[in-house]
Amino acid sequence: MKHLLTMNDLSIEEIMGLLSDAEQFAKGETWRPKRNYYISNLFFEPSTRTKSSFEMAERKLGLEIIPFEAHTSSVLKGETLYDTVRTLESIGVDSVVIRHTEDNYFAKLIQSGVYLSIMNAGDGCGHHPTQCLLDLLTIKQEFGQFSGLKVAIVGDIRHSRVARSNAETLRRLGAEVVFSGPENWANIKGSGIAYEPIDTAVETADVFMLLRIQHERHSAGMPLTKEEYLAQFGLTLERESRMKQKCIIMHPAPVNRGVEIEDALVECERSRIFKQMENGVFARMAALKNSIEHKEGAGLNETMYTKCKIVG
Amino acid sequence: MKHLLTMNDLSIEEIMGLLSDAEQFAKGETWRPKRNYYISNLFFEPSTRTKSSFEMAERKLGLEIIPFEAHTSSVLKGETLYDTVRTLESIGVDSVVIRHTEDNYFAKLIQSGVYLSIMNAGDGCGHHPTQCLLDLLTIKQEFGQFSGLKVAIVGDIRHSRVARSNAETLRRLGAEVVFSGPENWANIKGSGIAYEPIDTAVETADVFMLLRIQHERHSAGMPLTKEEYLAQFGLTLERESRMKQKCIIMHPAPVNRGVEIEDALVECERSRIFKQMENGVFARMAALKNSIEHKEGAGLNETMYTKCKIVG
Amino acid sequence: MKHLLTMNDLSIEEIMGLLSDAEQFAKGETWRPKRNYYISNLFFEPSTRTKSSFEMAERKLGLEIIPFEAHTSSVLKGETLYDTVRTLESIGVDSVVIRHTEDNYFAKLIQSGVYLSIMNAGDGCGHHPTQCLLDLLTIKQEFGQFSGLKVAIVGDIRHSRVARSNAETLRRLGAEVVFSGPENWANIKGSGIAYEPIDTAVETADVFMLLRIQHERHSAGMPLTKEEYLAQFGLTLERESRMKQKCIIMHPAPVNRGVEIEDALVECERSRIFKQMENGVFARMAALKNSIEHKEGAGLNETMYTKCKIVG
Repeated sequence: MKHLLTMNDLSIEEIMGLLSDAEQFAKGETWRPKRNYYISNLFFEPSTRTKSSFEMAERKLGLEIIPFEAHTSSVLKGETLYDTVRTLESIGVDSVVIRHTEDNYFAKLIQSGVYLSIMNAGDGCGHHPTQCLLDLLTIKQEFGQFSGLKVAIVGDIRHSRVARSNAETLRRLGAEVVFSGPENWANIKGSGIAYEPIDTAVETADVFMLLRIQHERHSAGMPLTKEEYLAQFGLTLERESRMKQKCIIMHPAPVNRGVEIEDALVECERSRIFKQMENGVFARMAALKNSIEHKEGAGLNETMYTKCKIVG
Repeated sequence: MKHLLTMNDLSIEEIMGLLSDAEQFAKGETWRPKRNYYISNLFFEPSTRTKSSFEMAERKLGLEIIPFEAHTSSVLKGETLYDTVRTLESIGVDSVVIRHTEDNYFAKLIQSGVYLSIMNAGDGCGHHPTQCLLDLLTIKQEFGQFSGLKVAIVGDIRHSRVARSNAETLRRLGAEVVFSGPENWANIKGSGIAYEPIDTAVETADVFMLLRIQHERHSAGMPLTKEEYLAQFGLTLERESRMKQKCIIMHPAPVNRGVEIEDALVECERSRIFKQMENGVFARMAALKNSIEHKEGAGLNETMYTKCKIVG
Repeated sequence: MKHLLTMNDLSIEEIMGLLSDAEQFAKGETWRPKRNYYISNLFFEPSTRTKSSFEMAERKLGLEIIPFEAHTSSVLKGETLYDTVRTLESIGVDSVVIRHTEDNYFAKLIQSGVYLSIMNAGDGCGHHPTQCLLDLLTIKQEFGQFSGLKVAIVGDIRHSRVARSNAETLRRLGAEVVFSGPENWANIKGSGIAYEPIDTAVETADVFMLLRIQHERHSAGMPLTKEEYLAQFGLTLERESRMKQKCIIMHPAPVNRGVEIEDALVECERSRIFKQMENGVFARMAALKNSIEHKEGAGLNETMYTKCKIVG
């Protein structure tokens, strides 16, 4: 693949190939591009995990990182994302990693025929494919396969970038998926995913995948206090005690400790929350490698200067 | 040269030497300093293009970049530019690239005898020599020479860092230069540059160099709407159709699309706007190389600690 | 040592060892870790000197720096320092340098058993051990030893991160220390350090160590104007003329020129203010080397994933 925008763009074979590469990187395998490769990370929303994880992945692959800070860029002078990306392309940047508030921000860029590769690191409430890949990697490390597993995705599904695409991808890979948590958040029309009350889901799932309550995306305030949310829909010690023996707990983080999950469970034996972060580096290395190999294989050395929209 | 502050400081020979080096870099030539060389980019105004272009140039020359962010620096505690620069010098930084709101900010630094080199990346409404160099490089690539060319510089000349120094430099190199656009913006007293109405300039120029309207520097609002500006002074499709066959369009960017220039023309065949950005990297590599060679040649290894203003 | 949190944690032998390494680095000695070593600089307060000095030290040791900017991190989404540090640890960061507004911020981190090393670059009004080390290095370079020296620490002692720990450490190393400046700022109960009026201290000290007035930490405004402060408690030309012949002037910077010290004295012959900054790089290289060697020697390769607080 050249770009990585959504999980839907990837075939099952491509997904399994990326997971396989990621597992090699997790074992200490290394890989380097054939020439100096320049990349820039464009984060228009706050991020610690995804940004630093991409930075680490890029360094481990020996890429050259050209810094970009949205709040000191010409975006402040009103420059569009398209012009910003074309600028970076012009100075020789090969790939950009983008996180942006706008759903599907990349459609315009792809349509205009940018030459550099785009790695989507989150678009609005849309997609976040490298998060999905690292989640899959974490499940695969644990269970070896996806078919036969029951995965419960729990919480703020409406505002999540990963819930729907994780659900679809897991089903393509053979897993059973249910949504749980507050019913009006989890009952997504047309998703084809069944809703299950939290107290059923907690006892039957092999993977209990919590989501972060995206306070910053809720237009109205939460109807419940933190304590009420935890008691009704969160993972309490009591609920954890009813889980299947091998059930693992996942969360994309940052965790609202004491809301989605009881503080003491964040680092419990079942928790793979920090393991997910560790895996994020390997999943991103795999995605970057795949995109760079595509470029190298295709001998893509066109400069964008040959492009022309209209002839005067 | 040790510092690069304004184009006026450079002789014609030096300018042609820098352009020649830049052309070599554009062809893929490489160059590295003899030892680890530390540089820091101090941008006190927003920038995408110039900052990332310098970053790319520095990486292509193998320089070590020490990050500096004005908004997280001790400038917030009231530290002066002089003390900031002396601090970086003390920790071992060899060169600083500076963009600052203040015209001629570098005068005080030079006068106090800083040991590191200063590359001016824009001072207030003053100078922006590497932008001038990349403009010259773009023209030279196109026409091979400057004498005999007619260059129209069009638009917000009063607030431009590049209009006057580009005009003077182009004349020193043998080109004819006119200013165009709104007459009260373009009629610069004492510049010795003739004013020409837009509809004459568009038909006679070999190089049509648009400037960005610096909304952020206009104390009063614009007297015209965007549509009115485009119709009266901007580059419309109609005006473009009257250009000389080989006339090229330039703009330092970021472009106000639909104001200085019709959106559809930004990437048309005549446009060198993104080519200019590409050339920016090579022009800056040439400028940095020249400054580093000066230091290497002069064996400048004085530590600044030997400096002393008064003896107690 | 694994972490460097306060000077009190270091034995005299360890301090002398660090100074000795720093002196080797000042002479051009180099040192590299055995494998790729990842570090991140977490500055939650503005800084030029300390941040860029650590960056330079890290580069000179060949470390890989993973950028972190507090104002674009998930700290904005309410993530705690503990979760931020654990995140960086999970993605493979070996050490973090932290400056934070909170006194003793590191206690919680150490208690929770983080695996990465913490280099304290300033906690609230608490400690700043690498500043102390560079001060010691500057004094040692000058006088060869500490015993027999009289050091006057002058000014905003109450709000200083370095005054008390510098005082204690200098006494452990055999120096005599007095506090001076405004009596209500310098008369620290339980410190065991004598107070001396400025006009006595200036005539008897071998090292005259000024502190920055931390305007940003004074809850009420200053009771004196700048001119009044300089006249009553600052280092004027007149006071400087009464100093012992070999007395040196120190200041951690940024200097409030014309307040703590007359502008013209900042770079006078006695001043070691910029020399201190130069030494900062070497002191930090020594501290980083020591911490990395500790990790290498102990074969610390545990991944944090094995950690578990409760078993479900």
